[in-house]
Amino acid sequence: MTNTQGKIITCKAAVAWGPQEPLVIQDICVDPPQKMEVRVKILYSSICHTDLGALNGVNEAERAFPRILGHEAVGVVESTGEGVKDVKEGDYVIPIFNGECGECRVCKQEESNLCERYHVDPMKRVMVSDGGTRFSTTTTKDGDSSKSQPIYHFLNTSTFTEYTVLDSACVVKIDPNAPLKHMSLLSCGVSTGVGAAWNIAKVKEGTTTAVFGLGSVGLAVAEGSRARGASRIIGVDANPSKFEIGKLMGVTDFINPKDLTKPTHKMIQEITGGGVDYSFECTGNVDVLREAFLSTRTGWGSTVLVGIYPTPRTLPLHPMELFEGRTITGSVFGGFKPKSQLPTFAQQCMKGVVKLEPFITNELPFEKINDAFQLLRDGKSLRCLLQISKFLKK
Amino acid sequence: MTNTQGKIITCKAAVAWGPQEPLVIQDICVDPPQKMEVRVKILYSSICHTDLGALNGVNEAERAFPRILGHEAVGVVESTGEGVKDVKEGDYVIPIFNGECGECRVCKQEESNLCERYHVDPMKRVMVSDGGTRFSTTTTKDGDSSKSQPIYHFLNTSTFTEYTVLDSACVVKIDPNAPLKHMSLLSCGVSTGVGAAWNIAKVKEGTTTAVFGLGSVGLAVAEGSRARGASRIIGVDANPSKFEIGKLMGVTDFINPKDLTKPTHKMIQEITGGGVDYSFECTGNVDVLREAFLSTRTGWGSTVLVGIYPTPRTLPLHPMELFEGRTITGSVFGGFKPKSQLPTFAQQCMKGVVKLEPFITNELPFEKINDAFQLLRDGKSLRCLLQISKFLKK
Repeated sequence: MTNTQGKIITCKAAVAWGPQEPLVIQDICVDPPQKMEVRVKILYSSICHTDLGALNGVNEAERAFPRILGHEAVGVVESTGEGVKDVKEGDYVIPIFNGECGECRVCKQEESNLCERYHVDPMKRVMVSDGGTRFSTTTTKDGDSSKSQPIYHFLNTSTFTEYTVLDSACVVKIDPNAPLKHMSLLSCGVSTGVGAAWNIAKVKEGTTTAVFGLGSVGLAVAEGSRARGASRIIGVDANPSKFEIGKLMGVTDFINPKDLTKPTHKMIQEITGGGVDYSFECTGNVDVLREAFLSTRTGWGSTVLVGIYPTPRTLPLHPMELFEGRTITGSVFGGFKPKSQLPTFAQQCMKGVVKLEPFITNELPFEKINDAFQLLRDGKSLRCLLQISKFLKK
Repeated sequence: MTNTQGKIITCKAAVAWGPQEPLVIQDICVDPPQKMEVRVKILYSSICHTDLGALNGVNEAERAFPRILGHEAVGVVESTGEGVKDVKEGDYVIPIFNGECGECRVCKQEESNLCERYHVDPMKRVMVSDGGTRFSTTTTKDGDSSKSQPIYHFLNTSTFTEYTVLDSACVVKIDPNAPLKHMSLLSCGVSTGVGAAWNIAKVKEGTTTAVFGLGSVGLAVAEGSRARGASRIIGVDANPSKFEIGKLMGVTDFINPKDLTKPTHKMIQEITGGGVDYSFECTGNVDVLREAFLSTRTGWGSTVLVGIYPTPRTLPLHPMELFEGRTITGSVFGGFKPKSQLPTFAQQCMKGVVKLEPFITNELPFEKINDAFQLLRDGKSLRCLLQISKFLKK
């Protein structure tokens, strides 16, 4: 038993105090886990565009400050609350923003991973059980320790802290022999991309794919398509440097829309003789979405949405365009049911079915988290891994 | 061999001369079938809203006059052109607006029924082989027989005529012992509706369904859902008289949106505890489409579009709404591959798996075709069957 069990832990966290403000590394208090909750010591965390979007406060309704962002990480269980059975102190785990309670109507069927209680919810900022937070400041901004204030949670996870508290539905145990740094990628980006190809589009051997937006998720879609034997993987991005790294993930053709004098979908239809079997929209731009849709072939072309769309604009598709046999589907966490399916996926990654190494392009200490955000803003990193806690790997 | 083989046939047809003008029953010339074409004596034809839409000239780009409308029928093969192997003189057949060539990339796979050469195309008005028509007037409008003019084809079929010429890809042979009047329903409406439930939504036993718009197609969706064991079938229509006939096709609950003080989708969500498993949009109205979409449950709700949308408006759905696990799919001819699958479906209808009788609400002689159109305009008929040719059933 840890000597912190049942006690409030004081530790370092990177707190977001307002839109677009740099995060502040400061001491916070982390309450013990309540019933069906788990307190986790975060070892590594990486940064995803969704963290950047939340920090920027793009969507006003979703804003909540002070808040601890971060949702892509790996850690070790410090202690568990009443009733938690599938993980215990010392287990290596990854936090998951889209949980699996195992008991609701959705969890009990195979068709969806949108758990009724713990599915991803950008509006959520407190714990489900009591509507409270497990984080608080040790002092106010003015240094007054008698008026500590609650700090909000983020996406069921909050990983930019040495200790976090999660619902046990949002914690997946992984093989202790797995390469921990790489496992953090399974928390979000790589699972989201690979799963979109495997579970949603169900990419088959010998088929053709177009990936719009070659960030980490888009590249993970390419890697997933490559692993499933796609014969042609067309990467589309306005940044020409993406092609080199894309080749590592199986991208066979590269299109920079800025180099074209015709719409991208026409180019893709030409070079594939009618369109690709699958397209993936990973930019969050509705005009790109239309290009992705029209890039697939009529009859059975399938477009999978992976991006986040902050626009108020609706789908720029006419209903009759759905009568040409093309379909469009949204994908959350790549369709993976985290507790049921992620341990197997982690094993596949360890066997090299999917390569994780190329996704980690930078590593920085926790203190440099604002530099890591800047790398992402500048398009200079895929995933920058932060070492959150010092620890001894057994 | 018929004594008309290889010769031009002069016969009666109902010709559409201009938007919203009454059809004119007049003599026309019907050329012999060319290579891979079939000339068919039409026995019965019924009228569908798509015929009415074309007569009204709703979509300007699709207008073509003079034209022979009609696409839902049953007939007997009079003669065949070079190369036709799967039907012969004397075979009973149904014309199909969405053909199956059997040789293109789409026909050779299982996922789609949108044959690359003969899929439904409202813009098409001539034969594929030579770009010509097989119909012409015997005289001009002024009675000048030296200046006969071509008459356009419609939807690969044109059935409001004693004789028509079709591509053999658009002709399906049926059991000569089938009840012929009822088989005309398989040409379009009933196949479209039942197939949307069976092949596109793939309705499972014990599930819940909502059908928006209880015309023939919507009622066929209900009948198909009933045949697949849906436990609850909610019919939505602004015409309260539809509930009585709907009961015959399995409708268990009826909602008239005019009677509600809340949106229909909220009512459906309430009475089903979160939404139906499948919804079907059969009205062609995009606002109803949004209601249908939101009536399904998150996680795996599936909306199938069966209506025709003449509006320029795009889909009134936000891309993020696709991330709640709901899908939306278009359905053409209920997903049936006509030559491969319709003979089996016809057998199932003959065995009573799907009831066809209630769909034929009226019968009229060919000469009364304009009255039949009026019945449809007035919402007073589901299908009005016209006897086109006198014939002796063997």
